[in-house]
Amino acid sequence: MKKLDVKSIKEVPFNDNIQQTASSQFKNSEKVYLSGSTKDIRVPMRKITQTSLKTSEGEEKQPPIFVYDSSGPYTDPEVSFDIKEGLPSSRTWLKKRLEEDPSSTQMSLAKKGIVTPEMEYIAIRENQNIEKNRKLKEGTFHAGESFGASIPPFYTPEFVRDEIACGRAVIPANVNHPELEPMIIGRNFKIKVNSNIGNSALSSSIEDEVEKLTWSTRWGADTVMDLSTGKNIHETREWIIRNSPVPIGTVPIYQALEKVNGVAEDLNWDVFEETLIEQAEQGVDYFTIHAGVLLRYVPMTAKRVTGIVSRGGSIMAKWCLAHHEENFLYTNFHKICDIMQKYDVTFSLGDGLRPGSIADANDEAQFSELRTLGELTKIAWSENVQTMIEGPGHVPMHLIQENMTEQLKHCDEAPFYTLGPLTTDIAPGYDHITSAIGASMIGWFGCAMLCYVTPKEHLGLPNKEDVKEGLMAYRIAAHAGDLAKGHPAAQIRDNALSKARFEFRWEDQFNLGLDPERSREYHDETLPKDSAKVAHFCSMCGPKFCSMKISQEVRDYAKNEEVKLSEEMKRKSEEFLEQGSEIYKEV
Amino acid sequence: MKKLDVKSIKEVPFNDNIQQTASSQFKNSEKVYLSGSTKDIRVPMRKITQTSLKTSEGEEKQPPIFVYDSSGPYTDPEVSFDIKEGLPSSRTWLKKRLEEDPSSTQMSLAKKGIVTPEMEYIAIRENQNIEKNRKLKEGTFHAGESFGASIPPFYTPEFVRDEIACGRAVIPANVNHPELEPMIIGRNFKIKVNSNIGNSALSSSIEDEVEKLTWSTRWGADTVMDLSTGKNIHETREWIIRNSPVPIGTVPIYQALEKVNGVAEDLNWDVFEETLIEQAEQGVDYFTIHAGVLLRYVPMTAKRVTGIVSRGGSIMAKWCLAHHEENFLYTNFHKICDIMQKYDVTFSLGDGLRPGSIADANDEAQFSELRTLGELTKIAWSENVQTMIEGPGHVPMHLIQENMTEQLKHCDEAPFYTLGPLTTDIAPGYDHITSAIGASMIGWFGCAMLCYVTPKEHLGLPNKEDVKEGLMAYRIAAHAGDLAKGHPAAQIRDNALSKARFEFRWEDQFNLGLDPERSREYHDETLPKDSAKVAHFCSMCGPKFCSMKISQEVRDYAKNEEVKLSEEMKRKSEEFLEQGSEIYKEV
Repeated sequence: MKKLDVKSIKEVPFNDNIQQTASSQFKNSEKVYLSGSTKDIRVPMRKITQTSLKTSEGEEKQPPIFVYDSSGPYTDPEVSFDIKEGLPSSRTWLKKRLEEDPSSTQMSLAKKGIVTPEMEYIAIRENQNIEKNRKLKEGTFHAGESFGASIPPFYTPEFVRDEIACGRAVIPANVNHPELEPMIIGRNFKIKVNSNIGNSALSSSIEDEVEKLTWSTRWGADTVMDLSTGKNIHETREWIIRNSPVPIGTVPIYQALEKVNGVAEDLNWDVFEETLIEQAEQGVDYFTIHAGVLLRYVPMTAKRVTGIVSRGGSIMAKWCLAHHEENFLYTNFHKICDIMQKYDVTFSLGDGLRPGSIADANDEAQFSELRTLGELTKIAWSENVQTMIEGPGHVPMHLIQENMTEQLKHCDEAPFYTLGPLTTDIAPGYDHITSAIGASMIGWFGCAMLCYVTPKEHLGLPNKEDVKEGLMAYRIAAHAGDLAKGHPAAQIRDNALSKARFEFRWEDQFNLGLDPERSREYHDETLPKDSAKVAHFCSMCGPKFCSMKISQEVRDYAKNEEVKLSEEMKRKSEEFLEQGSEIYKEV
Repeated sequence: MKKLDVKSIKEVPFNDNIQQTASSQFKNSEKVYLSGSTKDIRVPMRKITQTSLKTSEGEEKQPPIFVYDSSGPYTDPEVSFDIKEGLPSSRTWLKKRLEEDPSSTQMSLAKKGIVTPEMEYIAIRENQNIEKNRKLKEGTFHAGESFGASIPPFYTPEFVRDEIACGRAVIPANVNHPELEPMIIGRNFKIKVNSNIGNSALSSSIEDEVEKLTWSTRWGADTVMDLSTGKNIHETREWIIRNSPVPIGTVPIYQALEKVNGVAEDLNWDVFEETLIEQAEQGVDYFTIHAGVLLRYVPMTAKRVTGIVSRGGSIMAKWCLAHHEENFLYTNFHKICDIMQKYDVTFSLGDGLRPGSIADANDEAQFSELRTLGELTKIAWSENVQTMIEGPGHVPMHLIQENMTEQLKHCDEAPFYTLGPLTTDIAPGYDHITSAIGASMIGWFGCAMLCYVTPKEHLGLPNKEDVKEGLMAYRIAAHAGDLAKGHPAAQIRDNALSKARFEFRWEDQFNLGLDPERSREYHDETLPKDSAKVAHFCSMCGPKFCSMKISQEVRDYAKNEEVKLSEEMKRKSEEFLEQGSEIYKEV
């Protein structure tokens, strides 16, 4: 097991607050594990216990609901942990595999027909609430039109293997990140959400960033990108990886740029290669590499309203222009693949020319780069390196679907991973909402992972509260997408919550929601007493009149009508028999 | 001019706070008016002044941007007003028209080919930023696919008249609400947003509700519904209407129910008729009437997860069941039309059987009622009563478009007015977001007005902050929809803001946004100094590296490349001329 490299770390004054926040469990929730074919495969779930419904005929028990859990060992009271020590290894099988076959990747193994423990783990994880909740039967889900071509009613390890082998999904899992709980990114699985953290030259400390990491996974981040560009980049990342139960992504060019004192034209292959190895060695699970920003595409951005807005994209554009040479990430792509392959780091091919405004969406520069990313995908696959493709950015609603269609076409169905997209530019301070709209739609259309946007986007660095706001908006987007594309497990939680709402089981409505704390707080603003949580009314209509109560009377009425109808049918049937059972009577 | 009916009002201790909040103007914004063919047509706009761009070649002036303004006279420093007096009349022409033709409606006049001052006002209002900003030329917009069949590049009074005559748009404007600034609801115009206010039996005062009204119009509500069900319903409404520059909608059955002490089965036509006249007389501009909840549709809801969730719907369902009779709103529909016609109140035909959960979306009950609303629309039109149709509710993304298609088909293109729809049920506390997703999409598909949802939906009554959060989410949804369907004026503000962002004109970025206050506050959290607002960097990347700066270098490069290319072309052209200008040379 990889231990936190404490020697390289300056003493950081972590306070107990981080551990407390990360480890508190939601009310009526408990961490449970499903086991796989071997005992070291233990897949976490959150079990939400419901209260009983009190009816005139007694108590009606409600089943517990099991939901996907990205919060890691922090929410397991059985695990004692210390931020300064790092998390325990969850992939205990890793050592043996590396001894047997040190250069294998999930993709190379999948192509050989081997189901890895990670694949089995993921099959259980994606399935969990289906099997446990036992609500949906085979064939009852609606497939996601032309997109989710092959969502199975029950995920099998073999299905996972097949998706990895053909490149339609990735398992970002660096061999040097044993603390990670395996997860999958692909359009035939639950849509995933990424949160960005990281310091800048102007603000934030290592402590803040580790707190944002545990906070992110608590609120449902499936992966976290460390985008630090300020001080102590290496040390910050070390603390983050050692404490992360989710895959960590980075943009290595940021650190490379720091190494050449921020002068883009001084970048070169050697300093980049060194950075790549340094980060891969630490255990970064996926790298954003802007290898598609080709010299000839750069002038295509000149007439844009907002030019090049990707940091990585503009660094590479500047380098290309300064040297009048082709992007060294493109010319050295095979060498990059060799490093990625060695550690099983996944490519996240960066969209350095993504549009930075509604006006620039879907232009020549953007789609030219996308086609190049498609070429690079095929090279990466030929070297067994897992690959996903990054996408925009800022796109009005009517131009979103074209992004997905072009990506599927040119990148041979490699998973798409988009930032938003923002559907309008007129709401700084609310870009978690402008972008959640676009994210929901592209998720439905087949995007595999959504990179969150916080309310601070375009204005400043997100704090802890912003991280949570961004994650809530994106978990909504991802779930709305899962519902629309027909993920077989998606509707279970909606139905349970709706039923709790209809039956005035307030506690269950809070606990089944994405943010039990906030919904309880909002309810209590108007009706703070405990008695109101079992009351059959709410502050909207008051106690005298309630539509839900009337609905119960409708049910009773309909039942009576049915009884009457069936009595009528019975009577008719008897008449018919008396009359000799002839269908056509002579007149 | 109708004066506030002070006699009927108990002394309400309004504090100065309401007036101050409502009347403060955003930074660098000023209220201006465009005049029509007569001097009493004065159409308000908000003019946002931009700062200059400082370049190496001197200052480059930026044009002011003109935006639609729903805030009413409150933001006009020239108008002195007193909440206790009510607003001055803005429709000074009304008295003359009523003397000439007391029973005319906008629809009857439109059918006769008459362009009313309201129609001219609206043509200017919908056009304003196109004409003033002079950015978009005729024909450059993209029409909204099959939906906005006939969005004109420039709105004319004649176009407005035609849309009203055929029922594709409505102008909710009770003859007894002269304080109103005319606006239009129809899918070939800017998408509108409604905010709901109103007390319940458990909370809120008249003062709170008037404050929520002025607060709503300040943040962009195009219409406001008073859904009060508690005490002082009549008085609360009187204060609201007299102080409202936007159309006010109500659900009259709520007050009728209060009159029969909350016992639904005690309702009858007489008490309803009396309530309708009382409210029409006060000046309510549109009425939600649940005339489509037919007796035979009620049992269709029995097997739903969440039964009937519309208050009006469940009141009528209960009445029908109790009496085993057809809905008296349906059987008296012609009589209702007579009242509506007399005051030119617009129908908002209520969807009493709308789904209350994802599980119940697009079911038999919902669509049966929709078809009945279509029948009623034709009756209303035959009596020259303007009509719009209410829609759901809770609908997953893949089922949204069907709602719009069915509505267009069965209701002959009468404007659609939806509540959200919410695209998932798992996020109580965030339903402004779950529903803004659905609202954006249905707006793009052709929905004319979006009824906001606040973060408190399903949990409690919204306070002032919730009203603002709901409105921000919905103005985003409406604008994203306008962009996608190709409203000719929509992109102007996006482009101006994007350009300001790219050019580091921070003040302009704040002021052009939907919420200048919040974006400034967020920016200042990291960089509070004034100097940072002219700095060519932000807290995200810091001063050393900036992608926007690099983009400028790309432009310089591309310009050079172009010069080189044009020199090359010139040289080639000279060569060609030297060689005798022959296109096909003999080999």
